[in-house]
Amino acid sequence: MKKKNKVNAAILIIGNEILTGRTQDKNISFISNWLNSRCGISVSEVRIIPDVEKIIIKNILILSKQFNYVFTTGGIGPTHDDITAQSIAKAFKVKYGYHKEAYKILENYYGKQKFNDGRKKMAKMPINAKLILNPSSAAPGFIIKNVLSLPGVPSILNSMIDNCKKYLIKGLKVHSNTINLYTVESNISKELGLIQKKYKKFVEIGSYPFFRLGKIGVSVVTRSTSKNKLKNVNKDLRNLLKLKKIKILKI
Amino acid sequence: MKKKNKVNAAILIIGNEILTGRTQDKNISFISNWLNSRCGISVSEVRIIPDVEKIIIKNILILSKQFNYVFTTGGIGPTHDDITAQSIAKAFKVKYGYHKEAYKILENYYGKQKFNDGRKKMAKMPINAKLILNPSSAAPGFIIKNVLSLPGVPSILNSMIDNCKKYLIKGLKVHSNTINLYTVESNISKELGLIQKKYKKFVEIGSYPFFRLGKIGVSVVTRSTSKNKLKNVNKDLRNLLKLKKIKILKI
Repeated sequence: MKKKNKVNAAILIIGNEILTGRTQDKNISFISNWLNSRCGISVSEVRIIPDVEKIIIKNILILSKQFNYVFTTGGIGPTHDDITAQSIAKAFKVKYGYHKEAYKILENYYGKQKFNDGRKKMAKMPINAKLILNPSSAAPGFIIKNVLSLPGVPSILNSMIDNCKKYLIKGLKVHSNTINLYTVESNISKELGLIQKKYKKFVEIGSYPFFRLGKIGVSVVTRSTSKNKLKNVNKDLRNLLKLKKIKILKI
Repeated sequence: MKKKNKVNAAILIIGNEILTGRTQDKNISFISNWLNSRCGISVSEVRIIPDVEKIIIKNILILSKQFNYVFTTGGIGPTHDDITAQSIAKAFKVKYGYHKEAYKILENYYGKQKFNDGRKKMAKMPINAKLILNPSSAAPGFIIKNVLSLPGVPSILNSMIDNCKKYLIKGLKVHSNTINLYTVESNISKELGLIQKKYKKFVEIGSYPFFRLGKIGVSVVTRSTSKNKLKNVNKDLRNLLKLKKIKILKI
């Protein structure tokens, strides 16, 4: 696997059930964590869109131009509302039909007798796509150009994600550090801003309020591809907290 | 409140913590459910983007043109990475500064002595915006044009959402019905597709696999603004299930 300095990705969640609020999405944080920790790839944008062909096509074309990779979830099952594969084929103007290898895998999994039309539909995709194998329920995902298509069911997606790795160029790993404090953001916001300015290009500082056991706190998260820069910024942070007499929580 | 036939919205989640997978988003399903059930407004698209000014501006301009309303979450707190309010002001080319009413609310809440620079920052926004009051921690959200800005902390957002209502035009309520079955999607996919075709313009049928107690099941969700059409489609569904000898689960 080659390494590039900065590699980014977008996630495209396809499915009315997420948009209506019926289903709580779990795939965004899972994919993003996996890309960060295993591949050094940062997710730069996420979109959630309905199962509508022209909307899928439009978003595939925009995101695949703008980012190194696009991960789609949802819409590759057997029912009428599963239109991701055919929409991606249309977006890239490639032939959609039975993928020989996928067909064999599914026929073998179900047995010839139980391999009905619904199940056969899961072998339909851009015919020149490469497969992302599915160890839990056989129906494969696929990659075409820089778009990787995975199913929407989290447990199945989770079982497949490692099979995406061979198709990806790795980026530099982003290291991160979190400091948890019992204080309010506005108590440290000015100084945090100054420290962020000092390390502008090298470290990203985020500040996130939390509530725990009836108390208000702040998590200060620092992220950088340089371990040294991360050490330095955290020294500055610790000095600031000493000055302000704010204790760091041990969790 | 006036009523329109179809009213839609986009949600724009602003925050690196969601993109990196550090924080599991809870606001999308909450806002979407609230809009659906209380206002008859459907969420048509969601985007998650980083705390970067030019990206926020670009997305505000695109989404506010395309949809009736845009709800943003995140980036209106006191720290350096909270840049939503100033970015929205830039997007709409309106003046950004202390909002008189917001300033008074915050000064009153903290008291003059504890009203430091970080806290004052939360009174800065497009100066001609209207406020969305915050009953839990005072710092208000705001609406300018068709963009409503809310904080990212779910408990605070939840306490404020009802205060958005007076600014919204209601749409027709979307009714929905869910049937849960112990079967696999591919067993009913063909017939579901035919029923969907029959009710094409009036009812939306979604099919979502689940796992429960070691068994595989499918939730079939039907949605429509017409109660009658919903009844009819569900009659057809029940007939199909009788034919296939599939039992409906009672939950």
